[in-house]
Amino acid sequence: MTQTTRAPIETAEGAHTREWLRRFQRVRNASEALCAPLETEDYMVQSMSDVSPPKWHLAHVSWFFEAFILSPYLDDYQTPDPAYDFLFNSYYETHGKPFPRHLRGTISRPTVAQVYQFRAHIDQEMERLLSAPPAEHLDEIIDRLEIGLHHEQQHQELLVMDIKHILSCNPLHPIYRQDIRERLLADADQAPADQTFNDKAPRWHRYAAGVRQIGIDYPTEPAREHDGQGFVFDSETPRHRQYVAEFELADRPVTNAEFIRFIEDNGYSRTELWLSDGWSTIHRTGWQAPEYWEKVDGRWHTMSMGGLVPLDPDAPVCHLSFYEADAYARWAGARLPTEAEWETAADDQPIRGNFVENDLLQPAAQNERAGDGPQQLYGDVWEWTGSAFLPYPGFTPLEGSLGEYNGKFMSGQMVLRGGCCATPGDHIRASYRNFFPPQARWAFSGIRLARDV
Amino acid sequence: MTQTTRAPIETAEGAHTREWLRRFQRVRNASEALCAPLETEDYMVQSMSDVSPPKWHLAHVSWFFEAFILSPYLDDYQTPDPAYDFLFNSYYETHGKPFPRHLRGTISRPTVAQVYQFRAHIDQEMERLLSAPPAEHLDEIIDRLEIGLHHEQQHQELLVMDIKHILSCNPLHPIYRQDIRERLLADADQAPADQTFNDKAPRWHRYAAGVRQIGIDYPTEPAREHDGQGFVFDSETPRHRQYVAEFELADRPVTNAEFIRFIEDNGYSRTELWLSDGWSTIHRTGWQAPEYWEKVDGRWHTMSMGGLVPLDPDAPVCHLSFYEADAYARWAGARLPTEAEWETAADDQPIRGNFVENDLLQPAAQNERAGDGPQQLYGDVWEWTGSAFLPYPGFTPLEGSLGEYNGKFMSGQMVLRGGCCATPGDHIRASYRNFFPPQARWAFSGIRLARDV
Amino acid sequence: MTQTTRAPIETAEGAHTREWLRRFQRVRNASEALCAPLETEDYMVQSMSDVSPPKWHLAHVSWFFEAFILSPYLDDYQTPDPAYDFLFNSYYETHGKPFPRHLRGTISRPTVAQVYQFRAHIDQEMERLLSAPPAEHLDEIIDRLEIGLHHEQQHQELLVMDIKHILSCNPLHPIYRQDIRERLLADADQAPADQTFNDKAPRWHRYAAGVRQIGIDYPTEPAREHDGQGFVFDSETPRHRQYVAEFELADRPVTNAEFIRFIEDNGYSRTELWLSDGWSTIHRTGWQAPEYWEKVDGRWHTMSMGGLVPLDPDAPVCHLSFYEADAYARWAGARLPTEAEWETAADDQPIRGNFVENDLLQPAAQNERAGDGPQQLYGDVWEWTGSAFLPYPGFTPLEGSLGEYNGKFMSGQMVLRGGCCATPGDHIRASYRNFFPPQARWAFSGIRLARDV
Amino acid sequence: MTQTTRAPIETAEGAHTREWLRRFQRVRNASEALCAPLETEDYMVQSMSDVSPPKWHLAHVSWFFEAFILSPYLDDYQTPDPAYDFLFNSYYETHGKPFPRHLRGTISRPTVAQVYQFRAHIDQEMERLLSAPPAEHLDEIIDRLEIGLHHEQQHQELLVMDIKHILSCNPLHPIYRQDIRERLLADADQAPADQTFNDKAPRWHRYAAGVRQIGIDYPTEPAREHDGQGFVFDSETPRHRQYVAEFELADRPVTNAEFIRFIEDNGYSRTELWLSDGWSTIHRTGWQAPEYWEKVDGRWHTMSMGGLVPLDPDAPVCHLSFYEADAYARWAGARLPTEAEWETAADDQPIRGNFVENDLLQPAAQNERAGDGPQQLYGDVWEWTGSAFLPYPGFTPLEGSLGEYNGKFMSGQMVLRGGCCATPGDHIRASYRNFFPPQARWAFSGIRLARDV
Repeated sequence: MTQTTRAPIETAEGAHTREWLRRFQRVRNASEALCAPLETEDYMVQSMSDVSPPKWHLAHVSWFFEAFILSPYLDDYQTPDPAYDFLFNSYYETHGKPFPRHLRGTISRPTVAQVYQFRAHIDQEMERLLSAPPAEHLDEIIDRLEIGLHHEQQHQELLVMDIKHILSCNPLHPIYRQDIRERLLADADQAPADQTFNDKAPRWHRYAAGVRQIGIDYPTEPAREHDGQGFVFDSETPRHRQYVAEFELADRPVTNAEFIRFIEDNGYSRTELWLSDGWSTIHRTGWQAPEYWEKVDGRWHTMSMGGLVPLDPDAPVCHLSFYEADAYARWAGARLPTEAEWETAADDQPIRGNFVENDLLQPAAQNERAGDGPQQLYGDVWEWTGSAFLPYPGFTPLEGSLGEYNGKFMSGQMVLRGGCCATPGDHIRASYRNFFPPQARWAFSGIRLARDV
Repeated sequence: MTQTTRAPIETAEGAHTREWLRRFQRVRNASEALCAPLETEDYMVQSMSDVSPPKWHLAHVSWFFEAFILSPYLDDYQTPDPAYDFLFNSYYETHGKPFPRHLRGTISRPTVAQVYQFRAHIDQEMERLLSAPPAEHLDEIIDRLEIGLHHEQQHQELLVMDIKHILSCNPLHPIYRQDIRERLLADADQAPADQTFNDKAPRWHRYAAGVRQIGIDYPTEPAREHDGQGFVFDSETPRHRQYVAEFELADRPVTNAEFIRFIEDNGYSRTELWLSDGWSTIHRTGWQAPEYWEKVDGRWHTMSMGGLVPLDPDAPVCHLSFYEADAYARWAGARLPTEAEWETAADDQPIRGNFVENDLLQPAAQNERAGDGPQQLYGDVWEWTGSAFLPYPGFTPLEGSLGEYNGKFMSGQMVLRGGCCATPGDHIRASYRNFFPPQARWAFSGIRLARDV
Repeated sequence: MTQTTRAPIETAEGAHTREWLRRFQRVRNASEALCAPLETEDYMVQSMSDVSPPKWHLAHVSWFFEAFILSPYLDDYQTPDPAYDFLFNSYYETHGKPFPRHLRGTISRPTVAQVYQFRAHIDQEMERLLSAPPAEHLDEIIDRLEIGLHHEQQHQELLVMDIKHILSCNPLHPIYRQDIRERLLADADQAPADQTFNDKAPRWHRYAAGVRQIGIDYPTEPAREHDGQGFVFDSETPRHRQYVAEFELADRPVTNAEFIRFIEDNGYSRTELWLSDGWSTIHRTGWQAPEYWEKVDGRWHTMSMGGLVPLDPDAPVCHLSFYEADAYARWAGARLPTEAEWETAADDQPIRGNFVENDLLQPAAQNERAGDGPQQLYGDVWEWTGSAFLPYPGFTPLEGSLGEYNGKFMSGQMVLRGGCCATPGDHIRASYRNFFPPQARWAFSGIRLARDV
Repeated sequence: MTQTTRAPIETAEGAHTREWLRRFQRVRNASEALCAPLETEDYMVQSMSDVSPPKWHLAHVSWFFEAFILSPYLDDYQTPDPAYDFLFNSYYETHGKPFPRHLRGTISRPTVAQVYQFRAHIDQEMERLLSAPPAEHLDEIIDRLEIGLHHEQQHQELLVMDIKHILSCNPLHPIYRQDIRERLLADADQAPADQTFNDKAPRWHRYAAGVRQIGIDYPTEPAREHDGQGFVFDSETPRHRQYVAEFELADRPVTNAEFIRFIEDNGYSRTELWLSDGWSTIHRTGWQAPEYWEKVDGRWHTMSMGGLVPLDPDAPVCHLSFYEADAYARWAGARLPTEAEWETAADDQPIRGNFVENDLLQPAAQNERAGDGPQQLYGDVWEWTGSAFLPYPGFTPLEGSLGEYNGKFMSGQMVLRGGCCATPGDHIRASYRNFFPPQARWAFSGIRLARDV
């Protein structure tokens, strides 16, 4: 790539590119803001093999821009250290052998400060590239930039999940942010007095049978031109027909108070409620309550980003495995929705809710009904569906290494929908498919019930 | 149950009951026929934790009749040993704590002879019960008898799978039956000379898009009255609508010769062909070929029920994990069919093929086309689908302990369709859903390709 | 070895050889007598990886004669199956790669009957060889024969240990021999009435300090000439000096009644009594009593070769790990003896006791004192010492593959002394060093206390 | 402890106490000096479960003074955080349940800065206590202080070992100190040119047979009064007689060049050289060279505290397991010395060598012979002996929780002697018994050969 034509910045294309650069800066800043309350030591911890040290997240999302944009498209790009390409590759086997995931917590160098320098370097170089992008690669650059930003937003949510897990392992119950603690304690004090929307019995919305359009297609205009709202992951495509039988969906997620009743009704000891894998999982692990729950003086508490706080009975129950969600649904005489059912219900609903911008980082009770549809579909907790994460009919992964993004994980995982209190609000949509193994609990995962008619 | 009314044997119901008794005897004999070539020592081996000793199978299927029919419905029933209820319960947690599965091979008593005595005892008592069944329970008895017979047929197939695995672990390559060996060697000799149907390039059948009826409903008449062909497992119910997009299906399964080409094209070393879980599985296990394959003097051989024999290039490839089937399909530019697609194709096809009655216990090349439809849909090899084993819309498990039969395994497994060379021919149907974890290889599992249009 | 000179059978050497042949037959018969009460199925079980199936033991000890005597020294020797050399090699890596130990229970062929045929074949061929041994190899043959016989006697004890473990895993509590059961039940009935020697408080024998001669040298005359009593294992050699400080030794082993007091005094819960490895072992395993103990209706029972029987309070406690023996000793304010102390005490004691010839296969209370010295030094239970199994000063392993017999296990194991109720009486001596890993419990292992003065 | 008598500081006792305080400060400073080159991130890493994060070491040795001196003896002592007593207890089960060892790397708070504050707090409070110690507890305080200082010195060596392992796991090969790198590279450059003492063939020193005095007794005067050189650990006591047969000892440790010859002679592939546990260990781990060795462009390098450097052929070989040391000795036609032999040879030798004060933190070639005796007995590398770590005759552990210091580890470990390049020179003596499991390699462990005469 010796001679390239630079796109003149004064054109329409140039204006678009500037807009993308501002978006880039916004997303990059958001990652660092999430880490601002951390001590250097917190950045280093890998509290279980699913968790990555925050330092690694910050470096990995930067590496993504280096590996997929700067190295191929910025002529004279120089990496601060060629070893980063090995250390911060997550799982792109076709890009090179990644550093073993479970050992990420053993790498003390580069230091946190050096990782921030790496970030600054990437930011400068991206700015340099986007200020005068090679015209013949502009579409590809913007396409990859868009993926890179959504990728970094995904890692922002992972950062919250992982930081919560890291601090929760510590018997000192460290507090991520004191202001969150104060808000949560205030909520807890209020709870018994007020009547919230979630305190009422759930109602059921009925949906008629029919062939539905599920999933979404790639936007028809190039990324460079659209407004950034048109992005979709390959796993959401293509839009296709599914027959969905008549069903009913609860108008709100299951609450902590409801899940406590399941526990008190010996839900964890009744074999008939559990999938076989779930039954062996709870016996192997000894689970008797959701992740992060702890009984203090007879009252259920939970670790939060504000430390250990009393459980809000009306808030959506959170940090459950698929197995527990499934067992709860069976106990309640219902079932989990399929992802097509969920998407059918969400299709015409506005995207609003308790997202990361609400800055509570904890699911919360809703004080009153908002609109007519199902409440809290978006935000608060990811809702486990009964659907395995499998390719849609006609699914084609992206070309090259980016094709490893989603497709190769379509085995052994279950779909969750709707985003949570750690999800950026502009990152979610009705067709968005999140996925986790059925035993995972450190995501902000909860339950919404469905039932046959 | 002190006073019961006996159903007079001369009535229509009595005739039905006699028919059921004959069917019972037929199925019971078939299990013992499969074990006839075994040495006493073979009955004892648990060669991996998925395998059960043949002795255990013979006892367990008998226990099923004791636990679910004789104990509840035969007034004065006496068990030969109350401990059998613990030793031979497979996984019915609601019936009592089962003996740990992985330790089945450590139980030398009861002896094989005593297990055969247990079988004879169950047979006599079942005959006694069916000769004068309590009228008020007749429907329930026949319902459970029908399940018990299908259950025993399932274990007949497991017996073949497990015996094959047991003998294959032995470096002496023991031969289950010499006559099978001779047939297989004769086939191998012929292979290069003859042109078989499977030797030709596969053709693709196209199926139009549309809403399909998938699954099956329970028969409307009681088991007692129908002809025994109407049986379905709960997991196949209910019949329901699914939208199936246009697709194409290969007219025959993938052959050994084709899979050898995948191996020789470094299929096992190309990360882009594999699901993430598959890639880590083949690295953990070191798999470089299907289960039971062994290269002798440069030629691929395979263990069979006739010992180690040269691989028939035109026979369907067999003993693959889902991961290998999926990787092969990707390599071939195709994909695995969904179970709805498979059932759509099978719906109007006759149920014929290389079943256990063919007594070869090995997939075989087909010499010429039979009929117009896809060939070898039934028999030879179970065909991996791309569908996870999940409940159909409206699925309700059976009441009581029998509700554990299928429902609790609806997690972490993939569906296979069509039966194999170890399946009883009257045990399979278009709606039949078999399932195994994606890493399982000891079933007679193979590949049929599908593709989008 | 085409031309060999045969030793004339009428000479003194011939007479010796005949004597060796009779000894060979005696030992070989004893192995089969121990297996006579078994069902074919019992021969197949490997109930944990330390245990070998009895079938394997019978074949392996025969293989030893094939590999080390018949193959090298009998010109036209033919093996029944060349694969046996792989299947029945235990751990002689220099002889060829042994079959993986933990998979021994998966090998159903050769059958038990075929293994007995293998034994008969070996017996005939050994008789043929010994009837006209090649004179130039006679010494070597007799040396190896002697090792082979002691090797088979060791496996006789292992057979008893392994059969006991195999039957004990079965919840049916199978009975190896009914006559043993009757003797044990009779003893149990008597126990409370009679006063046994073991019921009295132990007394302490004091031994003066001094340089002791420990271990033993190889006999000076060739095996061919001595009476068979002069055999020693390499690990017992050479005789060497050790300084042994003044010490005291209990005059009898610790009894079941005494160990029950340890349990009731919360011995298993008091961390200060345990070695660190022991503490983690009992937490990992959940041990709360010796192996095979089971409380039935509030009374301690134990599995025996006569099935489950009440524990005899005055019998030596048995089936303890080194960790438990060590913790008991600390609780009792004493310690385990070193092997040099044990040998010092045993040096002038007659070799008599409850050996395998007593045919009870269970440690027993002694009714009255026999002689002045420490009682029950020999027989009943192997006594854990506080000595690690390490080479004596000047130790040299045997040449060739037989050098793997003992030396390579001199790491991570503890020495036990004195033989047990499953040891052949002519197999034990004061210098005999048995060894097991500190966590092993399936040997007939017990405790004798020592203390400093 | 409300009313205590303070020891007047002007007395002889007061002078002693001041001396102890100075010693306390010296040792405490040395720990911090070792950590001075670290980044905050390095303090957090637990690179394997045997390794502890440096932060934990710094806190744990401080906790030792809190738990065993300040809490019991300083009336109004206040801990900065009661949770430290749980977080920083290593293994004193009788003191309270310790935090799980393998999770030490997951604890980010207290931060490194807070741990240094904890250290400062302990230092101040110790100074306060020692300035006016309660007279009635003075002996006990000084006894515990002395143990605490030796304990901290042990952790200084562990700090070096652990920091080396932590940095070695990082593919970037971080350098602990640049000046060490320069010294090591200079040595490597010199090596081929110069003739070192170690380059010459080893000679053998012969020692006559006889009863030897081994071990050491506690000093007869109280710690408070002696000069601090009289300290011994309980495991070294009591001094006792052992008979040691005639033997020979090599006059220097085995060098890297010699060990390379073992590797090139296929030492790692020859089963006859290995203990059974060693053979399975090298197959499980894949070891083909000592820990930290890496071949770069055909030349062996090793990680050091100066990063990756070429191996000095004449330096003592280091970072070997006991199994490798034992296999090497067998290959060389020799054996490892017993600890009594080692101590016999060391008894009259001056304590000098390449200790931590030499500040190289790497074993080094010796340029010329120093004195007549065996060279490099002290310093450079801990020398594996063939002796298991077991109690000496008459051994009695300390009272209370400190009794857990050594005694409970007397199982499954081997003794090493002589100190190494990371040992404080005033911490070692002829009777000092270090111990590690036979598979451990991250200590500075090497080989000195012995042989029978």
